[in-house]
Amino acid sequence: MNAHVFDQAIALTATGDGQYTGATSSAYANMVGPFGGITAATVLNAVMLHPALLGEPLSLTVNFCAGLADGPFEVSAQPVRTNRSTQHWVMAITQTNAAGEAETVTTASAVTAARRETWSVDDEAMPAVPVPSEVSPYTVPSPVEWIRRYELRPIEGAIPPTWDGTGSDSRSRLWMREAVPRPLDLCGLAALADVFFPRVWLRRATRVPAGTVSMTVYFHAGSAQLAEVGHGWVLGQARAQAFRNGFFDQTALLWNEAGHLLCSSHQVVYYKE
Amino acid sequence: MNAHVFDQAIALTATGDGQYTGATSSAYANMVGPFGGITAATVLNAVMLHPALLGEPLSLTVNFCAGLADGPFEVSAQPVRTNRSTQHWVMAITQTNAAGEAETVTTASAVTAARRETWSVDDEAMPAVPVPSEVSPYTVPSPVEWIRRYELRPIEGAIPPTWDGTGSDSRSRLWMREAVPRPLDLCGLAALADVFFPRVWLRRATRVPAGTVSMTVYFHAGSAQLAEVGHGWVLGQARAQAFRNGFFDQTALLWNEAGHLLCSSHQVVYYKE
Repeated sequence: MNAHVFDQAIALTATGDGQYTGATSSAYANMVGPFGGITAATVLNAVMLHPALLGEPLSLTVNFCAGLADGPFEVSAQPVRTNRSTQHWVMAITQTNAAGEAETVTTASAVTAARRETWSVDDEAMPAVPVPSEVSPYTVPSPVEWIRRYELRPIEGAIPPTWDGTGSDSRSRLWMREAVPRPLDLCGLAALADVFFPRVWLRRATRVPAGTVSMTVYFHAGSAQLAEVGHGWVLGQARAQAFRNGFFDQTALLWNEAGHLLCSSHQVVYYKE
Repeated sequence: MNAHVFDQAIALTATGDGQYTGATSSAYANMVGPFGGITAATVLNAVMLHPALLGEPLSLTVNFCAGLADGPFEVSAQPVRTNRSTQHWVMAITQTNAAGEAETVTTASAVTAARRETWSVDDEAMPAVPVPSEVSPYTVPSPVEWIRRYELRPIEGAIPPTWDGTGSDSRSRLWMREAVPRPLDLCGLAALADVFFPRVWLRRATRVPAGTVSMTVYFHAGSAQLAEVGHGWVLGQARAQAFRNGFFDQTALLWNEAGHLLCSSHQVVYYKE
C-alpha cells in the first residue's frame, strides 16, 4: 500500500544529527512554491523524527523566507535547550540555488513538552454551526493544486463568488478534513491551520497577490486526542484583526466535532494593493 | 542626562558581525530571571542595531528557553535571508554557565519589512472603555520589581484581590505606559505586549506558578506612528483561549488612545496546578 499523499509530501530521509533531505510534492503546489501548511508540517516532522525528542509539540513558528523551488531540499532540526519537561528547537529549510549556494528558504522554531494532566478549561467555545452533513462542499474551481487535498465545507466567509469590492468582514468558518482519509496527527493539524485563503480577499472581495510571511501554531491537543478525531471533521475559524500597509494578521481556531479546541494559530500575511 | 531605565536595560554593545553583549537589569527582575518583555525588547534591539537592517519589524517570535541568570549575556542577530522588501532574522541569547559552557537561554526570529502605504483597515475596533483619567491606578503591592516600571490602570480583569478560586473569565483590559516618561517605540511596544499577568491567575482566582514559554508580536504600527503616541497611554486587552494540561494560550491586542491597533500579540504560557 502506498503512503498517504500527505505523508509522502512531508517524508524526510535522515542524513545524520538532525539533518534531513526531502523534496517538494506537486500534489501541494501553490501559486509560488508549495502550500505553506505542508512546509510547516515538514519542518515539524523533522522534530518528530529526531531521536532526542522530548514530549510533543506545544508551539511551532514558521517563517517563510522564500517560496521553495520544485525539487529537493535540506531540513535541519536541532534541540538547542532541553529542560526537565520542555525542549526548544531551531529548524531551517535550505535549498541549493543555481550558483550552487545553500540558501535559507524557511526558518522555524518549536517548543515541545512532556505534558501531564492538570486543571483544564476551554475559554473559546466552538460556535454554534450546522453539522458537516448539512453544509455543502466547496465547489469553486481551485486555482491551485493543494486545495484538492482537502474536503472543505464553508459555513460562512467562503471565497467571494464575484470580485466586486463589496467585502465587509474577514471571518470564515468551515468544516475541513483530508480529501483522502488520514487519521489526524500533529503534522496534519499544523497543515490544517494554514488552509484558510487570504483574509484580504474576503475583506475587500478583491483578489490581490498575498502570501503568509510567518505563522505560529499553539497545540492544545496531543497526539492521543488527535488520534481520537481520526478522519473526523475539524471546524476552522479565521479572521483578520488589522490590514495595514501591505500586511495583515490572521487569528485562527480549530476545534474537533465534539467542540474541543485543538489548536490556536496566528499568522502575518503579505498583500499587494 | 542618564538614559531611560528601559534603554539601559536593553542596551547592547556590538562586538562584531551581529554579535552583542548586554547585561540583566535589576530594575526588570521577575520571579525567575528578568521580565520576558525586556528580553523580547533586547533581542529586537539587536536587530534594530544591526547595520544590515532592512525596514522595520513586522513580526517577532521569542522562545524563553530558561530564565536568564543575573549578569552578562551575549546576543546574536543574523539576517539569514534578505529579499526585495522583507528580511528574515534569527536571534539567540546565550549565557556562560558555571562550567564555562555557553548555554542558549533564548531563541528568537523576526521578519522586518520596508512597508509602503496601501489600502488599510482595522477589523478589531478598540472597545468602548473609560478614558485613562477616569480609571484608578493599579495599587496592589507588586510581588516583582519590573511591574514598577509601568503605570497600569486596570479597567477590567485586574489581579484578583483574593485568591478564592472564584474566577470565571480570563479577559483583562487596562491602560498602560512607562512609569518614567519615554516615547513609545518598537522595542517599547514589544515589551508592553508582555505586561499582562498570567491569565490562569484571573481565570481561577488562584495563584499558581506560571511563565511565558513563547511569544509572538505582529507589528501593525511603524516607528513613525509610535512616535506620535509619545508618552501617551496604550490600551491593552488580553485573554486566554484554552487552558490545557499545563499550558494556556494568550491573545492580546494593543491600541493607541486614538483607537488604532498598534500590534497583536500571542503567547503560550506554562502553569503549574
